[in-house]
Formats: sequence, C-alpha cells, structure tokens
Amino acid sequence: MPEPLRLQGISASAGYAEGPLFNLDRGPARYTGKATAGEEKAALEAALASATDGLATLIETADEEAAGILEFQLAMLEDEALTGPAFAAIASGMPADLAWRQALDAEIAGYETSDQDYFRARAADMRDIRDRVLRALTEEQESAAPAGAILYGEDLAPTRFLETDWSAGGGIALRAGSTASHVAMLARSRGVPMVVGLGTSPANPDGLALLDAEHGGIVLAPSKAEIETFRRSSSSFLARRDKAEAYLARPAVTKAGTTVRVQVNIADPSEVDGIDIATCDGIGLMRTEFLFGKAPPDEETQYSCYRKVLEWAGDKPVTIRTVDAGGDKPVPGFTVEESNPFLGLRGIRLSLARPDVFRVQIRALLRAAVHGNLKVMFPMIAVSEEYQRAAALFAEEQTGLVARGVAQKMPPLGIMVEVPSVAIAPEAFADVAFFSIGSNDLTQYVMAAARDNAAVAHLNSVRHPAVLRLIAEVAAFGLRAKIPVSLCGDAGGDPAAIPALIEAGLRDLSVAPAQLAMAKATIADVAI
Amino acid sequence: MPEPLRLQGISASAGYAEGPLFNLDRGPARYTGKATAGEEKAALEAALASATDGLATLIETADEEAAGILEFQLAMLEDEALTGPAFAAIASGMPADLAWRQALDAEIAGYETSDQDYFRARAADMRDIRDRVLRALTEEQESAAPAGAILYGEDLAPTRFLETDWSAGGGIALRAGSTASHVAMLARSRGVPMVVGLGTSPANPDGLALLDAEHGGIVLAPSKAEIETFRRSSSSFLARRDKAEAYLARPAVTKAGTTVRVQVNIADPSEVDGIDIATCDGIGLMRTEFLFGKAPPDEETQYSCYRKVLEWAGDKPVTIRTVDAGGDKPVPGFTVEESNPFLGLRGIRLSLARPDVFRVQIRALLRAAVHGNLKVMFPMIAVSEEYQRAAALFAEEQTGLVARGVAQKMPPLGIMVEVPSVAIAPEAFADVAFFSIGSNDLTQYVMAAARDNAAVAHLNSVRHPAVLRLIAEVAAFGLRAKIPVSLCGDAGGDPAAIPALIEAGLRDLSVAPAQLAMAKATIADVAI
Repeated sequence: MPEPLRLQGISASAGYAEGPLFNLDRGPARYTGKATAGEEKAALEAALASATDGLATLIETADEEAAGILEFQLAMLEDEALTGPAFAAIASGMPADLAWRQALDAEIAGYETSDQDYFRARAADMRDIRDRVLRALTEEQESAAPAGAILYGEDLAPTRFLETDWSAGGGIALRAGSTASHVAMLARSRGVPMVVGLGTSPANPDGLALLDAEHGGIVLAPSKAEIETFRRSSSSFLARRDKAEAYLARPAVTKAGTTVRVQVNIADPSEVDGIDIATCDGIGLMRTEFLFGKAPPDEETQYSCYRKVLEWAGDKPVTIRTVDAGGDKPVPGFTVEESNPFLGLRGIRLSLARPDVFRVQIRALLRAAVHGNLKVMFPMIAVSEEYQRAAALFAEEQTGLVARGVAQKMPPLGIMVEVPSVAIAPEAFADVAFFSIGSNDLTQYVMAAARDNAAVAHLNSVRHPAVLRLIAEVAAFGLRAKIPVSLCGDAGGDPAAIPALIEAGLRDLSVAPAQLAMAKATIADVAI
Repeated sequence: MPEPLRLQGISASAGYAEGPLFNLDRGPARYTGKATAGEEKAALEAALASATDGLATLIETADEEAAGILEFQLAMLEDEALTGPAFAAIASGMPADLAWRQALDAEIAGYETSDQDYFRARAADMRDIRDRVLRALTEEQESAAPAGAILYGEDLAPTRFLETDWSAGGGIALRAGSTASHVAMLARSRGVPMVVGLGTSPANPDGLALLDAEHGGIVLAPSKAEIETFRRSSSSFLARRDKAEAYLARPAVTKAGTTVRVQVNIADPSEVDGIDIATCDGIGLMRTEFLFGKAPPDEETQYSCYRKVLEWAGDKPVTIRTVDAGGDKPVPGFTVEESNPFLGLRGIRLSLARPDVFRVQIRALLRAAVHGNLKVMFPMIAVSEEYQRAAALFAEEQTGLVARGVAQKMPPLGIMVEVPSVAIAPEAFADVAFFSIGSNDLTQYVMAAARDNAAVAHLNSVRHPAVLRLIAEVAAFGLRAKIPVSLCGDAGGDPAAIPALIEAGLRDLSVAPAQLAMAKATIADVAI
C-alpha cells in the first residue's frame, strides 16, 4: 500500500473530484523516416491536412466558446509563418517529425517566456497543435480517459479537454499549466475541477486520487480517513456553490444593505458569449493585449472588436484599457527587451513612446465609443504628465476624425492605479474621470515581489497592511475629489480578500466571469 | 566648419575640461598565426608574462588606491579559471589571439549582463586585461594621448587611465562606461572630469571639445559663444568646489544651525584608504557584494574584511549590510535566474532561503563586532517576519560561538527601508534598532521604473512627491518610536536632492566618498 501523498498547486477551476488517475504524458509513437525530402514534405502536408480535418470536425459539434478556441488553433495551423520554417528544414534534409517539432518548439519557447499571462497561456495551444500533427505523422490514436478519471500530467491540450467525456465527473491536475490557459477557461465554464502548478510531483502515479480544486491540492493514494474528510469538504462546497448561484441574478448587497457594483474582467471579446449581461454591472476591464499577438493590429480590427463588446453590453459601461504590452513578449516592431520588464517600458510608457501605434488604438476607440457606454483607461500611469499627454493625443485624433467627417465620441478617460506613486500621492490626478485600482501590479510593486515568481509568492499578498492602506487612501481621496474608484485585480474576485476591500472603502469591484457568483455571495456576508 | 553637436550622458566625476579629442577606439593590430598549437601556446604564455610584468611595473609607482585596482587585474591574469579555457582552445587548434579573446569575451558577457552596478563595472577591468594581452601578442605599443586631451571612446581601461598624464588637465567622455567602474572611482579621486553613457554618438570625431562633467554633457565642434559660456560655468564650478573643500573638515550644519550627520558609503574595503575618518561620521553603508564575486566567501575572508574597516573607523560606527545578492549575476550555487530580478529572490530573501550561506556571514559579523562600533542591517526587508527570522539566526549563531569560546558581540540589527511596504506601514518594525532608507530601490519600486533602464529614467526620480512623502513618513515614525533613521542611497549625495531630504526630516545621510565635501557644502546652504 503506497503512502498517501499531498501535493499543492494553484486552483484554476474550483471544485472537487474523486477518481482514478489517468496519465496524460505518453511520448508520441516513433516516426519512420522517408527516403527523400519530397516524401518528407508530402508526409508533413498529409499530417497537417489530417490535423486540420480533425479540428474542423471538432468545431462542428462545439459550442461558441469552444469553437473560438479551436478556430484559433486552426488559424495557427494555416499560418505560413509557422509551417514555413518546418518545410524549409525538410528541404534542407531534416525528417518531417523533427522539422515540425523544431519549428513549433521555437515558437512555444517564445510564448513560454512571456511575462504576460495571456501569451504564456497560449503556449498550451501551441503544444496541442504540435502534438496533434505529430500524432497524425505517426498515425497514432489517443487513448480515451475512462469516465470520471482525473487527468494528470504536465499540461492538457484544449482539444483533449473537448474530446473528453465529463458527464460522469472527473478533473484535471497539472504539474505545469496556467490559470489563464484556454483549458482553464473551458474548465471554469464547464465546472470541471482543475489544479495547475503542482510542480515536480511524481511522473507516473496511479490509483485513486482526491482532487481538491477549491484549495488547489491533490492527494494521491489517500487513506480512508482522508477520503471521508474529502467527501465532507466536497458536499460543503457544492452547497455553497448552489447558494452562490442564487446570488448571481441579484444585485450585490452587504448584510448592512450597502450596494456594491460588481463588473467583470475580460481578456478576449469571445468571453462575453458566456456571460449574461443581466448578472453584472458592466465590463470593468477589457484587456486589449489579445489584439497584439504577432504585431500591432490595424484600426478596423480593433474597432470591430471594441464595437462587438460595446453592443453586447448595451447601456452598461465597458471600460477598455489601452494596450498594456511590454515585457519580453516579442511583438515585432513594438516591444523592447529589458532585464526587468515589470519595471520597464510597458503600458502607457510604451504607448507614449510609440505614438504611431497608440494613435491607431485611439482612433479605433473614439470610433467605437458611439456604439455604447465606453470608458477608456490607461495602464501603468506613474506621473500626471503621462495622463496629460495621453489625453492630448485623444483630443488630437478626435479633431482629425471630425475633420474627416468620421463618427466618433470622446469617452471618459481614467487611469489604472497600480504604480505606487499614484496611490501614495493621488492629488496629482484630480482631473481624471475615474480610478481603477490594479491590485495585482500594485501589490507586486509595494511588496517588491514579482507576481509570477514562486520564490517570492509568500510576500505577494494584497492583504498586507501596506497594500490595504494604499487602497483605503485612494478610496478616501476618490470620495473627497468626487472621482469614482473601482478595483479590477484578482483580489476583487477572491472571497478571502473581498471583506478587506469593502472595509477599505471600495464599492465597485471587477472580477473574472467565473468568480461573479461567489463574489456576490461573499459580499452578501460582509457586515459593513 | 562642422556644426556644433551637444551630447548628453551621465556625470561620473564632476568637473570641466576643454581640449582636443583623442580617439580611444583603435582595434588591435593583426596577429600572425603560428605553425603549431605548441607555438601558439608559447605565444600566449609569453604575452601573459609580458602583461603581468607591465602590471607589476605600474604597481610599483602607483598609490594605494591604484595599486588595489591593478592587483585585482593581476589576480585575474593569474587565475586559471580565466586562462584555462584559452589554453584548451589552443590545444584544439585555435590561434592564440582568438582563443584568448573568446575566453575573455565569455567572461565579460557574464559581467556585462549583471543587474548589479558593482559586477557590471568589473567588465571594464576584464576588457582591459583582454586588450593588454592582445597587445602583448602583437607586440603593439599604445600611443599616448596628448596632454590636456579629452579621451573619447567606448570605454576606458583603468591601466590606460593610470598611464595617462593628467597634470595638464583633460577629461574622459565614454559612449558606454559606468559610474561605478574602477576608472570612475579613479577619476573622482584624482579630480579628472568624466562623463559616461553618451550612447550612439559619433564614432570618430576630432577637434576641440567642451566636456561639462558637472551636468554630464559634451559639446563637439563648439561655437565661440559656447566656448565663452563654458568657461564661465567652469570658473563657477571651480569656485564652488574650492568652497566645498573648506567644508570637508567641519561638521555639517545648516544655516539655521541644524546638525546633519554625514557618513559615507563604500563598496569595497580598499576604498577607506582614500578617506580621512575625521571628515565623516562613520560608514553608513558598507556593501558586502564584492566578497561574492565568484562564490560565497568563507568566514575568515569575511571576518578579516569587516575587521579591517572596523579598526580603521575606530569609535565611529560602521554599518555593514548583509549580502544583497540576486539578479542575474551568477554566483554559482547561490543566486537563481529570474525574469524580473529586481522583484525576485534577492537580499534578505535569498539569505533566508540559503541559511547555509547566511550563517557564515553572520558568524563573521558577530566575531568582527568586537573590533569596533559595528551595526548590521538587512537589505530588501518587506515584512516583519523576515527581520525576526534574521535576528533569530544571529542569536543562534551567537550561542554557538559562545559555546565554542569564540570572541563575539551582538551588534545592533537594523533594516533597509527600500521595499515600499516598510515605508508605508513602518509600525510593524517598532523593534528594529535603526532604519536606513535605500532611496535608489525605494524610488524604483514606488515609480515602477528600473533604475538601470534608460527608457524609464525620466520616471525614476527621488524628488517625486510620492517618494518624498514616504521618506518624510518614515522620518516622522522614527522620531515617534525613537528609532534612528538615516538614508544611504545616491540621493544623499546629490546637491539637487539634499534640501528636500532635510525638509522631509532626515538628519543623517550617507554619501559616496567623492560627494562628501559637496554634500556638506550643500547642507550649509539649507535654510531649515
């Protein structure tokens, strides 16, 4: 009988699952090399076609959210920037499997080292594409996981998730992975419990396991007593979740009757398809980094994305953040390499340094503003001159659109409060339309502890008194100066942090869509 | 007649120089390859011997400070870790010049990418060693600069500085370079004006130039009007400097009669040789990173370094900071690689994560404490638990030394105030012996702008109201809680910042030795 083993990771989708482990990490079957470069090329072409067909079949039966993800993969498969280097390597004598793997691994490495969750999370999609084509090359079939199993391995491909039957329960436990990956988004929207970041845990365990994706842990080879405790926690969670669901449709009100606005954060326009606008007070943060995946996007692409979300939201506000690019994600011709990207040329700094790129986004926003209740905010503001310069560019571009007779509207312009200087001395910003506290970045700067570095994770807490003090001071300044203050970091959706945030004076939180119900239920329990 | 061209860099040694440009950047002469690997080996051995002899001759006539620098180079030349790879490459068929260049360039690259000024500055010494041996290989002589010339180029070797005749004036203008380099230290102590970081300025200018190393600029091909303005600024500077020198020997007192303690910062024990202890109130910051160049040092090495400085200072306090390692400087077996090293496992975080290394430094400090007025401070404290754990390790090691009958003494234990959380909520640290504000790091976190990133240098200002407000709050808390507060960042020696620091309530500054006189003179002009 093996000893019970408890592993700790990070919850990517809350819930509980009890079931047999299913090992995801089988290497692909061996590829048999062909005689000539021409045959290798034909083999890769056939494999690409087969992988494309497989994706197209999956899309037919997928719902809108899943289809969006699969279409992203399909687009990558058809991208010559991805397939070109592989065919070039084949032409120079490399076998098809190696050529494909090498081309994809180079791309994956670029995504994996990004400082931005969004781009890092796309690495899983790239690995999925890589393995799907490698399997097609070796004509290998994937073995299906038994119903109710806990899928365990390094990472999980979105297509694999979609091919799995979750009707009998089950869950996901990953050594690597990311809470921002497509799989994590799917798991949250389907209610499949998922834990990521289990680290250097055993490679090939088997037998029964207990997945506690409420607290981010898993128990391998559990004892009888552990199974009983687990089942009690699981029942309690389900009861709380059912209760929370009941809060979803109502406005958020504390025990004392204080109303709290609850908006949602989105990273991609397709996310709104899964949200009922009636359940939230608007979009508190729409990120625009997704548009900058390979290069700065053109005005029309941006305009139609923004317009889509504004029309979906109707009268409710949609707060779009101008691009917070920077870090080491190579957006060719835009970002720069730096030794400390979190303290570098990112957010509004980069936009002001590159007005050619910024003006395109500004025009798209001014034009989209006529289609709804748009608000625009600038990330990484540190000094008031940055806000003044950004606002001046909006005014200039508006004048240009007016001169050309293009429909436009000036939205209210606000700032993110995430650089400590703004929270410590907010009086320099008495003329902005609103403040939105970015608790993730604010916390990492106040604690001098990067939010993506596990070695200093113990220091990175929004509930440290220094961080809460700054938040309270910004809330108080907003009241005095009649400037609305909201918060759009992860803390807003964290039941452990919500009471402290309301106590600090905040009455407007913006949370991940999956956290909406639980956030409202938590607010209902706050005494203030 | 060429157009005047103004270039802006950073002052590394204040002063003015007017003179002809002398171009430093000539490539080494062509090396003639030998017939066999044995002959190549003999050629490199002869060149190493010749370079060693040259250094030894220079040392004979050098003063103590210069000798220290040259001995560092001599030690590197004799280090088999450096010469070994070159001889190995020769054995595998490479010519001697290429083998040596390749071995040194690999080493130089490691130093150049460091996030720590101290290590980055050592890259110049390594280039000096590289070129000295390459010149010996080609038996090339360096041409001497004419008296009074402004040496202009990518960087300047310390030996080249020592071989130059500065008696007729002259100065240094570098496209790269570092204010923390050995050459910069030499320039400051000899009063040679020096500017670094001129960037992508013309490669081969000539003619007359005006070097304004008070403000960090240079004018190439100046107009007559510019020459006249320059001469007036130069005279004014000399008058101010003469006046400042008169303040050196006196205690620092403001116009209103407020006494300000002025201590000095040192990065290397050899620096104390150039300081008269009577001119300062002690060592406000002794860095210990210099000890960790290649590997964590043993207890005896540390003990004798600390003891040397304590004995030199006599009754005056010497505040030693426990090692602030971290970033991407590879101290094998100690530091880790991170994507944002300034927000990572550095300072006390790394020391607490590696108690095996930390305990060695703690024992050396406890033993050295009996030889003078030692104070010890911890860098990068963010939460009070870190201070408690560090203090507990001091107590444990003291108990161990007592048990073994070793002479020791518990020094007062204080903390650096550089992580914003400490400045925002100092009440958690009511039990520390003293605070020392690290204005460089505090500023970069409050402004979220890395202090070594030129693209965000406009945001990195200690005089931003948010930074000054935190400094004032820490000073006020110290008064209330009866905890001494000093400041040991670059701001303490900056005439432009000193009035604001005194206004914020500080009465204890620690400055670079070269800034001591000007700091005291500036204090004498403050009204408070």
